[in-house]
Amino acid sequence: MAEALEESSILPDFLRRRAERSPGALALRAEGRDVTYRQLDELAAKAAGGLRAAGIGPGDRVAALMPGGLDFAVLLHAALRLGAALVPLNTRLTPAELRAQLLDARPKFFVVGAPQSETGLGLAQELGLARWLLPQAPDERHPFYAGAPVEPTPVRPDAVAAIVYTSGTTGPAKGAMLTRRNFFYAAVTSAMGLGALPEDRWLLCMPLFHVGGLSILLRSALFGGAVLAQDGFDVAAVRHGLHEEGATCVSLVPVILERLMQAGVTPPKSLRFLLLGGAPAPRDLLERALAAGWPLASTYGLTETASQAATLPPAEAEEHVGSAGRPLFLTEIRIEGQGLVLPAGEPGEILVRGPTVIPGYLHRPDETSERFKDGFLRTGDIGYLDPEGYLYVLDRRKDLIVSGGENVYPAEVEAALRRHPGVQDAAVYPAPDEVWGQVPAAAVVPKDGTPPSPEDLRAFLRRELAGYKIPREIRFVSELPRNAGGKLVRAALRPEVPSE
Amino acid sequence: MAEALEESSILPDFLRRRAERSPGALALRAEGRDVTYRQLDELAAKAAGGLRAAGIGPGDRVAALMPGGLDFAVLLHAALRLGAALVPLNTRLTPAELRAQLLDARPKFFVVGAPQSETGLGLAQELGLARWLLPQAPDERHPFYAGAPVEPTPVRPDAVAAIVYTSGTTGPAKGAMLTRRNFFYAAVTSAMGLGALPEDRWLLCMPLFHVGGLSILLRSALFGGAVLAQDGFDVAAVRHGLHEEGATCVSLVPVILERLMQAGVTPPKSLRFLLLGGAPAPRDLLERALAAGWPLASTYGLTETASQAATLPPAEAEEHVGSAGRPLFLTEIRIEGQGLVLPAGEPGEILVRGPTVIPGYLHRPDETSERFKDGFLRTGDIGYLDPEGYLYVLDRRKDLIVSGGENVYPAEVEAALRRHPGVQDAAVYPAPDEVWGQVPAAAVVPKDGTPPSPEDLRAFLRRELAGYKIPREIRFVSELPRNAGGKLVRAALRPEVPSE
Repeated sequence: MAEALEESSILPDFLRRRAERSPGALALRAEGRDVTYRQLDELAAKAAGGLRAAGIGPGDRVAALMPGGLDFAVLLHAALRLGAALVPLNTRLTPAELRAQLLDARPKFFVVGAPQSETGLGLAQELGLARWLLPQAPDERHPFYAGAPVEPTPVRPDAVAAIVYTSGTTGPAKGAMLTRRNFFYAAVTSAMGLGALPEDRWLLCMPLFHVGGLSILLRSALFGGAVLAQDGFDVAAVRHGLHEEGATCVSLVPVILERLMQAGVTPPKSLRFLLLGGAPAPRDLLERALAAGWPLASTYGLTETASQAATLPPAEAEEHVGSAGRPLFLTEIRIEGQGLVLPAGEPGEILVRGPTVIPGYLHRPDETSERFKDGFLRTGDIGYLDPEGYLYVLDRRKDLIVSGGENVYPAEVEAALRRHPGVQDAAVYPAPDEVWGQVPAAAVVPKDGTPPSPEDLRAFLRRELAGYKIPREIRFVSELPRNAGGKLVRAALRPEVPSE
Repeated sequence: MAEALEESSILPDFLRRRAERSPGALALRAEGRDVTYRQLDELAAKAAGGLRAAGIGPGDRVAALMPGGLDFAVLLHAALRLGAALVPLNTRLTPAELRAQLLDARPKFFVVGAPQSETGLGLAQELGLARWLLPQAPDERHPFYAGAPVEPTPVRPDAVAAIVYTSGTTGPAKGAMLTRRNFFYAAVTSAMGLGALPEDRWLLCMPLFHVGGLSILLRSALFGGAVLAQDGFDVAAVRHGLHEEGATCVSLVPVILERLMQAGVTPPKSLRFLLLGGAPAPRDLLERALAAGWPLASTYGLTETASQAATLPPAEAEEHVGSAGRPLFLTEIRIEGQGLVLPAGEPGEILVRGPTVIPGYLHRPDETSERFKDGFLRTGDIGYLDPEGYLYVLDRRKDLIVSGGENVYPAEVEAALRRHPGVQDAAVYPAPDEVWGQVPAAAVVPKDGTPPSPEDLRAFLRRELAGYKIPREIRFVSELPRNAGGKLVRAALRPEVPSE
């Protein structure tokens, strides 16, 4: 009975339950269209019917290569209703990268959006995948919109709801299996830190196919707020969302916040918090944003933790600039080095445990068991907890530079470089060295005007950093390589390195 | 591992976890003193140490007869930390009523507040209970404040956290066993309807020993808000809490709201909602309160559902006056008649299922199994769901009298009356009252000879029953209305009430 209760009552069909409780509330605004929870539920019920007619049932996987709008949200909820898992693919990947993920995921069905038709249909044919091509605009005759509505049936809480591919520190992308339970507790534990209101409107201009987008779509169903979904970043649209559409929450990566501020966008009164994550934010940006009144909530999260693992609430932002905050209420964070738990203040690998942590990677039991220890996920990231329990993320492990036995964390060197008045941005990466194994090297974006000389910069850095942390080589570039999520790709700056 | 994860991560020690996440945040304001979460945690750790030294461990019960202030909150969290259950006793009960509950609960320890010393110590001696008498003001030498601090250890989610006595339709009071899981999901599902903010300040002028008080204390630890606890109702204090202390939430019963409005108290801007429950509210009161701008959240709940089962959010209050709203997100409500589920609009018995529903009554497996059906709790209350899913409660548990938020069970008062030597039979029923909503009234069949006077009977009852249970009006009749089966038909005694 406890089991039955858990399944039927603690984790009901998220969308149907919300449609029953708040049928007329705004669920989603996308592509200029407002959809209530009742309407979203009706669409998802029909899409589930279409998928079921195509043979999809519990445990199956449905891959999606499509824009981040209404159809995406409908498909996500339709898959959940059937007990199937959505495999949302990054629309910026090359066909070769997509092929690798499809071959790994082995989906039973593939849904392709109109803008992705060429790549998507080509892959479907090549891999022999049953598929739908969605029309540019909804057409009621298409099976996606025309299925016999499916009523919810109990689904196990540990059923996989989505599989999101994430590059590991080494090797090919791995499919992180996110369960219904993961998403449920991600919403709950986020609300325990940042709060949640039925009137919330979450502005989302980041891709829905990332875990942040999925979490926010499902969190809104659970707590009853709305999602204002913008497919792709556009300053004017974000400004409108913030100032004209009553956004109360917004998720951004640092580069995007920088661009908004440079465009003169100011925080609206309605905004409860700006969730800033995906990449370490320069201290200077944080300070300027706080001075401009943005209610910053810096966060540290991973695909494998269903988004946030630690978050700094806006009320604590000024006093702890540079921290990602304390772990979320239901989340535990531990710092380890050489297999031992390290005391406060000592940097080491960040480990995360809690109900939002995935059970593992699809088809990869060995890599799964390597990544877990006592129920804790080894993130591969480096950081420390200060004596008050605030997390400081120093670096992603793959970027760690080891020079003559000393560890160099690129983020620390970059932060120092950015403090130089002639530097706008900087990236630090390892260069091979015959003596030390690796030495740090830097790519620097100078501010307008006369760039400082490498000697100037090194002299500046020497005042702040130990000698082994000073970049041996400094070159000037006009911009830094970043991925779709705005994250710095330091690896792209590395000289040719023999593969590990 | 799933089990270990559930225990250690999903349900950590509520207070310690909050003290780690928000150590400096206000936890409780009581008796003119502000206590942060770190301070509350330190006090609870020491109280747990004192209790442990007194032999208390997992599965034990600790009874409490004390005022609703800081010490009460400390004791609640101390019991939880040890895996013990708190049995909070209603301070308005008579020694006879308290004795019955103590005999049923069989606590291993009894904590008595200074104002309750006479009754409490008398009962402790009579029943041979180990006990503490708490000082009027905290004294560090008292074991309650001087134990060796206890660190949290994993406690099972289904461990009983509190036992709250509730009188059934017949027979003596039964101990509703509320688990840690019940309280956790009560907080979560409440937040899914009414929202929750870390800045919330919940003004509580209702007794802490009822389930509403317990739920709010624990909810605040889980979601990080503060409780402004006022022991007993005082218009000036409530006005101050609302207008000077930034209350964002307040729980009231209808009588108290009426008195606040009559005293000219207006809703402050800070107030997110006024949770109105504990008794049916007159429509007229609801309409006047809405007109005055109170953000009403009418609710229906029971001890057995850890408080709210259905709640009408303020945004829907005007359009659904008289409804208790839709079921909470994680809660299901079903209406039954003759063992069948009834369609919308048809009144019947209200059944409730969900993760906030208790597993049963202490030491009463038979009554527990009678009260449950397919995981649903039979509430005994009568109501219907309208076609949109809004709950309308028509009548409380067969014959229940709700007087100023306190429940009076006719059977209990009748049994006491029958113990008087001059009484042959008695029936108790509700009489309308302008102040309290309802008050008990009695029809008495005297034994042959001179009937006792109403004053005699009331004096007799006062020795056994709390003041709010004493019939305001007593009339003498020659026989009581009974049906063909010989069952008392109390409804036939009620004064004419205009049907709604």
